[in-house]
Amino acid sequence: MFRHVVMFEWVDGVDDAAIDAMAAALDALVATIPEVVSYVHGPDAGISDGNFDYVMVGDYASIEDYAVYRDHPEHQRIIAEMIKPHVAKRAAVQYHTG
Amino acid sequence: MFRHVVMFEWVDGVDDAAIDAMAAALDALVATIPEVVSYVHGPDAGISDGNFDYVMVGDYASIEDYAVYRDHPEHQRIIAEMIKPHVAKRAAVQYHTG
Repeated sequence: MFRHVVMFEWVDGVDDAAIDAMAAALDALVATIPEVVSYVHGPDAGISDGNFDYVMVGDYASIEDYAVYRDHPEHQRIIAEMIKPHVAKRAAVQYHTG
Repeated sequence: MFRHVVMFEWVDGVDDAAIDAMAAALDALVATIPEVVSYVHGPDAGISDGNFDYVMVGDYASIEDYAVYRDHPEHQRIIAEMIKPHVAKRAAVQYHTG
């Protein structure tokens, strides 16, 4: 399996409703992509100082299947219109999980 | 379920053998902590520019179970002796996964 993990720190004063809309758009998107085995995302729980604000963890059978999700036009639209406008910092890793 | 995700960017010139030893120490540790439901970690696959170098994803039944792992003396020793000396950047999120 192959996993994509990405975290975001939002800009100050980000609109919670905009983040909820982004999350809903991602849920709707991944439901349409059979290559997405699992996609579990959400906001930081707020129990640790200095954390990022949001994390997405997606599982795929292969790098090629991950690329189907990564390059999907609707995913690129969500990134451009619903994620990037709010991002202060981004951190990502893709890794083989077994 | 409650998930802890943490990524590290290592300092330039980090010793791969030191990272392998850190990973082995974590595997040995989590095998001794029944509160750890799942612990999947590894180095970045190198398919994307600008990624961090390493990620750990741990699953626990509750925040309290996560805290057992977080505060475990051997975990604190691994952090102090095997992780922190190599860290250039850290990014973390804890979140409720359902």
